[in-house]
Amino acid sequence: MHLGQVIGTVVAERKYPGLEGIKLLLVQPLDHQRKPTGEAIVAADTVRAGPNDLVYLTGSREAAQALDNDFVPVDAAIIGIVDLVGVER
Amino acid sequence: MHLGQVIGTVVAERKYPGLEGIKLLLVQPLDHQRKPTGEAIVAADTVRAGPNDLVYLTGSREAAQALDNDFVPVDAAIIGIVDLVGVER
Amino acid sequence: MHLGQVIGTVVAERKYPGLEGIKLLLVQPLDHQRKPTGEAIVAADTVRAGPNDLVYLTGSREAAQALDNDFVPVDAAIIGIVDLVGVER
Amino acid sequence: MHLGQVIGTVVAERKYPGLEGIKLLLVQPLDHQRKPTGEAIVAADTVRAGPNDLVYLTGSREAAQALDNDFVPVDAAIIGIVDLVGVER
Amino acid sequence: MHLGQVIGTVVAERKYPGLEGIKLLLVQPLDHQRKPTGEAIVAADTVRAGPNDLVYLTGSREAAQALDNDFVPVDAAIIGIVDLVGVER
Repeated sequence: MHLGQVIGTVVAERKYPGLEGIKLLLVQPLDHQRKPTGEAIVAADTVRAGPNDLVYLTGSREAAQALDNDFVPVDAAIIGIVDLVGVER
Repeated sequence: MHLGQVIGTVVAERKYPGLEGIKLLLVQPLDHQRKPTGEAIVAADTVRAGPNDLVYLTGSREAAQALDNDFVPVDAAIIGIVDLVGVER
Repeated sequence: MHLGQVIGTVVAERKYPGLEGIKLLLVQPLDHQRKPTGEAIVAADTVRAGPNDLVYLTGSREAAQALDNDFVPVDAAIIGIVDLVGVER
Repeated sequence: MHLGQVIGTVVAERKYPGLEGIKLLLVQPLDHQRKPTGEAIVAADTVRAGPNDLVYLTGSREAAQALDNDFVPVDAAIIGIVDLVGVER
Repeated sequence: MHLGQVIGTVVAERKYPGLEGIKLLLVQPLDHQRKPTGEAIVAADTVRAGPNDLVYLTGSREAAQALDNDFVPVDAAIIGIVDLVGVER
């Protein structure tokens, strides 16, 4: 899984039928020091994340698992809101 | 999922039998500021996207889920046409 | 899916039992302007592609779907021979 | 699979229901000479790895296989603690 | 699939239970001109490859397919020993 920060939302009226009711957020991937890394992605939200929340995401086939209907064609999902990242020194 | 823009079409007469009737579009991946990022890919269309449309795509196993017959060997699909990308400030 | 050009073949006598009879081709990935991009990969052929053919490939789980026996451990397959790539201007 | 070193932990109260009781560790990917390569990832632990342990990880669909309930939406898991990496000379 | 060369072995006593008896080799990915490309990975061996053998690998879900028990959490497997790579000129 990867860390990320919610930076926006994506609105799409015309879409694949199975996607109704799934909230899509724009997420900036972060490294473990919370620095941006790579391009923002569009992820389905399963934990009611809000703007600027630090979250972790799952990808690939696992993203659809996180939704009630795992037949949806979703390849990225927010599955937790991070309280603390503890790093060894 | 990733944002992208439809930049063309791919025509192929000789192909895997399960692919008849599936429209293949050429899509340029974009970042959330709509700047091109990485190489254009070939994606199956599920929402009747047209030239220059801003879309979002799903990849891997999820792409086949978006088609009526999920046994097709497709690894990228357009699943929505984007109306609005709202970015936090 | 990605565009590519057939640049060679791979011969392997000793292999996983399920792979007998599957032809393996060496394919150079191309961008939509047909410029090489990234390293050549080894792909299973499902459309009897020949040397220098412009093809499109599918990856991951979908590649095995394109073969008669989808239990083969194959992660890249040629699924069409491209006649035309039309790019918007 | 990839080599990595445990560098921290991730704590998240609010998360996808299936993730309760799964320990999430922060892992720095390493090359075979044990030099860091790429960004740290968040991985589920299946072998009770501790701080600074040298481990190997599996990704994608296989990560969920390594947990008792393979319906969890997890895309990276620690599946072994490395005793020795022997390199040919 | 990708080409690679066996450059070592990985020994791990403490591991996910389903992994007993699976030999893990360290493999350096190669391009089609047999030049190293990217980081070495840890792959399960299905063809009894030896040190310095030129092999090809499969990844993702397909790697587990190549093992007798496809419920193992393995994401890279050696599935053939290459005799010849023929490149078009």
